[in-house]
This record gives sequence, structure tokens and C-alpha cells, in this order.
Amino acid sequence: MVSGTDGRGAEAGAYIAIDWGTTNRRAYLVAADGSAIDTMRDDRGVLAVAAGDYPAELAAIRARYGDLPVIAAGMVGSTRGWREAPYVPAPADAASLAAALLVIPEERCAIVPGLSLLAGPRADVMRGEEVQVLGAVAAGLAPADALFCQPGTHNKWVRTEGGRITGFATAMTGELFALVRDHGILAGMLDGPVADGEAFRAGVRRGAGAADLPVALFEVRAAVLLGRLAARDAAAHASGLLIGADVGAQALGGETVQLLADGTLAALYTAAIETLGGAARRIDSHAAFLAGIHQLQELRS
Amino acid sequence: MVSGTDGRGAEAGAYIAIDWGTTNRRAYLVAADGSAIDTMRDDRGVLAVAAGDYPAELAAIRARYGDLPVIAAGMVGSTRGWREAPYVPAPADAASLAAALLVIPEERCAIVPGLSLLAGPRADVMRGEEVQVLGAVAAGLAPADALFCQPGTHNKWVRTEGGRITGFATAMTGELFALVRDHGILAGMLDGPVADGEAFRAGVRRGAGAADLPVALFEVRAAVLLGRLAARDAAAHASGLLIGADVGAQALGGETVQLLADGTLAALYTAAIETLGGAARRIDSHAAFLAGIHQLQELRS
Repeated sequence: MVSGTDGRGAEAGAYIAIDWGTTNRRAYLVAADGSAIDTMRDDRGVLAVAAGDYPAELAAIRARYGDLPVIAAGMVGSTRGWREAPYVPAPADAASLAAALLVIPEERCAIVPGLSLLAGPRADVMRGEEVQVLGAVAAGLAPADALFCQPGTHNKWVRTEGGRITGFATAMTGELFALVRDHGILAGMLDGPVADGEAFRAGVRRGAGAADLPVALFEVRAAVLLGRLAARDAAAHASGLLIGADVGAQALGGETVQLLADGTLAALYTAAIETLGGAARRIDSHAAFLAGIHQLQELRS
Repeated sequence: MVSGTDGRGAEAGAYIAIDWGTTNRRAYLVAADGSAIDTMRDDRGVLAVAAGDYPAELAAIRARYGDLPVIAAGMVGSTRGWREAPYVPAPADAASLAAALLVIPEERCAIVPGLSLLAGPRADVMRGEEVQVLGAVAAGLAPADALFCQPGTHNKWVRTEGGRITGFATAMTGELFALVRDHGILAGMLDGPVADGEAFRAGVRRGAGAADLPVALFEVRAAVLLGRLAARDAAAHASGLLIGADVGAQALGGETVQLLADGTLAALYTAAIETLGGAARRIDSHAAFLAGIHQLQELRS
């Protein structure tokens, strides 16, 4: 047992919660009242763990935090992870998720299912983000009727009504930015800083509502070649285009967005949301995850 | 002199024309009347030729076609090519291009400048495609007032009025498809055939006019995971999304598009244009290039 956990892992009702994503994971030692006693983060995401190695991974975490029950959410429950926890169709709430936990009795581990959406022409899926959203509502960090934004490689927009998740959309914003920055005709032009500023906001305005995003992206190159855009502003402008398209598609119209983000992404999305007439409130995503997973752990017990 | 050219390269008024692009080039031995006597294509695009090697490249082509004047168009005139031929601002016609030829006297070579566009928020550039478009009009292959489409890695839409190029837009359609097929979350899901069919056309309809293209792309993954889209149709659907966004941004409304393409891309763009209410006429891009370059060679003389 490492210092800092102080033997409390053995308290009645304590457990281990894991937010187990594609490239990273974060484990929490959680007390019976839902408060975090300790946390650790590493790069042992599902892409780094072979299919047969999950029991050993759990044993290593228990060696640190104590021989406690485990509840895990995220890509660990996907076909690329440990075991597939079938999607729960939206609309869904914490009770729907708790009823569909995938329990692995011999490992004393439960895996939270993801959510699926089929609505008209739209199809979408998520794994992990739903815990943060439901937790934010449960903990009173956000209203029960709200629009959440979870920026990242794949940004999730999540609508809640009465505390239930009723709709969501995934935008490949971060992935597309990385692809055009690292490959193809814009590679080598997007090495400058990505930060809020006039170049970013001009990109946001150009990208928002644009039905010609593949044209807008090429304009970045042309604008630099023709001296209309400073080379050092090209990356911020291209980021603005993509985040502008992402935020603009939500047609906010003055709505307040519950932003589960921090750091640069929180600043960029806040600027884009405000540029397009909305408002953003930042929510601590770790606190939201803990509240959400604790709700599920209590429903499981 | 290779067989097939039969010494005719030495005829009065004959010359060598080169369509010199980023990854490939095509050279023509052209008779005084503008007809092609011979042609050769290889992968010695500007990315494969070091800055100092252009004289040797020309010497090799002249060893085959005769010691003739050369006129070259495309990326050879860019900062990545041999010498930079500054852009001519649109609107422009053949006379504008001929007046701005970059002549390299010691090499008896002229390089055709590209076109630039600055219009409101839009900035765009092209190098090489303008020769095909002006040639198509000059040769009577297309009307003087027309909308051209030149699919490829970077698809060009070109508007002509009275035989002048008055506007154009570049869409990174082919590049974006290659990026999402080869990298990121959709990689490995887009290995199926890309051909016209219901999956492609459904993609076209979803992508056309869509202000949420980064969402529509993620839907491909979700639709396959949820069994709504067959895995073998995913590539055709994703291609449809991007080509649909590209064509849809032109808001055709029944207009006939002059399509400078052949093979698979011609079939896909024709299907997308027709799905979105337009009509497509195919034009031989080699014949169009020859007509355009001959017009410039005559104006140069």
C-alpha cells in the first residue's frame, strides 16, 4: 500500500473506479461516501493492454489501492477493450446504465455500458462520457436540462432532459485537426501556436454553419500564399474553422453550454461558443466522473 | 528520337508541352497545328525533382522529342517547383496568362502562371487546372459560360463567363478521404470498394449542405457498430459524404457541370451531381489541356 492511502482502502464500502479510455486511464480509490482518497493516471489505455492482460492490470491496481471491488467505464467495455458491454440505447439515465452493467464476478469488476443513438438519419455511440454527464447532474454541478460539450479527439455534445440523456452527437474535430496538421497539403503550415485570438475567431466565424468545410480548409493555404493570413496564425485559424464548424452545428442561439474540459481546449471552446452567441460554464470533469461512477456503484450494490 | 515520333519533332512550329504536377507529369510533342504527335507520362512530378535538376529533366525530354521550345504548366511554376511564376488574379483569360508567362530564355522554356482569387472572405489558388478550363472553352468542348469540376486530391470548381475564369473554389475532398481512410478512428473500416450505389448516394445526401461534416464522418463508425451500415459499404458511404459536401456546396439547382475527369472519379462525381439535381457532361481533360496550352503557345509566339 503506497503512502497517502493510509490503509483506508480497506474501509467498508470503499471501491476502485477506473475511467479507462483508448490511450489513457485514470484510477480512483473511492471512499464509501463517494469522495476520492487517491487517484493515479497513466497511459495504459486499451490500445496498450493485450486482451488477456486485464486481470493482471486489475491486480496491479489492487496491489496499490487494496483488494476492493472495481467499477470501470470507457473503451474498456468495447470490442477493442476487455469485454464488450453492449450499448444501452438513448434516452437513458443512471438506472438504465446500472441495470446493464457487465459484471465479471470472478474479477469482482463491473463494466459500465456505453450509449447508442439511432434517430432518423443519425447514428452515434459513446463510452465513458455518459458517466461524466450523468454525474454532473447528480452532483448538482449542472442543471437537469442542459447541453454538455466534452472536447477532445472526438468531441461529444450531450443533451439532458430531466437528468436523462436524450440525445448526443460526436464530432471528429480534434482528429481532423491532427490529420490536416500532420499530413497532406497543410502539413508544415500549421506549426504555429493554437490559441484564442483574432485568427482563431475569424476561423470560427468562417467554419460555423459552413456547408463547404473542405473548401474552407484549403483557403488556409491560399490565404497564407497570398499574404492575407500570417503563417504563424495559420494553425489557430485552421483550429478555429474546425471548432467553429463543430460549435456552429449546435445552433446555440444564446444557450449556456456545460463545458467538461480544462486547459487549452476549454479556452478555445469557450471562445468559440461566445463568438457564436452562446455562453459556456466550465465543470470539473474529474468531479463529474466521480459523482457519476459513485451513483452507479450505489445502484450496483 | 524514339520510334513513333518519326522525325516530325523538327517540323517548323512544333513544340513540347508539359503538364507538370505535384506527383506526376505528362509531356506532349505538339505539331504546329496543336495536334499531339506523341505523349509520355511518368512520376517525375515536382516532389521528385530537385531544384537544380530541371535543366537536365528538359534535356532528357528533348532527347526524346527533339530540340524544341517548351511550355510547361502546373506546380512546376510554384515555390515547390522550378521557378515561381507569380499568380495572375482572377478574373483572367488566356491573354492574361500569356502576358504573365515566366520565360526562361536560356532554357527556351515558358512557365504558365497560376491563378489567385481574393473575394470577400475567400482566398484560393490554382496551378495547371486553368489551362484545361480555358482550353475546353477555346476548343468548343464546353460553353463560354459554364461551371467546371476537376475532381482529384484537391477538386477545383471553376466558373467561366464569356470564356474568362471569374471564380473558383478548391475542395480538399480527395485528401480528406485519404486521411480518414488511412489514419484515425475510421482507418480499417474503409477498406471496402468505393463505387456508386445506394450507400454512396445516401452519403451524398447526408453530406450535401451539411454544416456538421465532422459529425457525419463519425456516424459512419457508429452506423457500422450498430448494424445500420454494412461494413463493406462504409468506404462508399464515407466517400459519398465528402463528395456530397463538395458538390452540395455548389448549390447546382439543375445546372450542367462540365466534368474534366475520367474513370472512377468521373463516375462518382456524375452520380453525386445527378443525385443533387444537376447534370454532368464529361470532357476529355487531355484534349482540353492541349487546346489550352496551344492557345498560350500561339499567344507567346
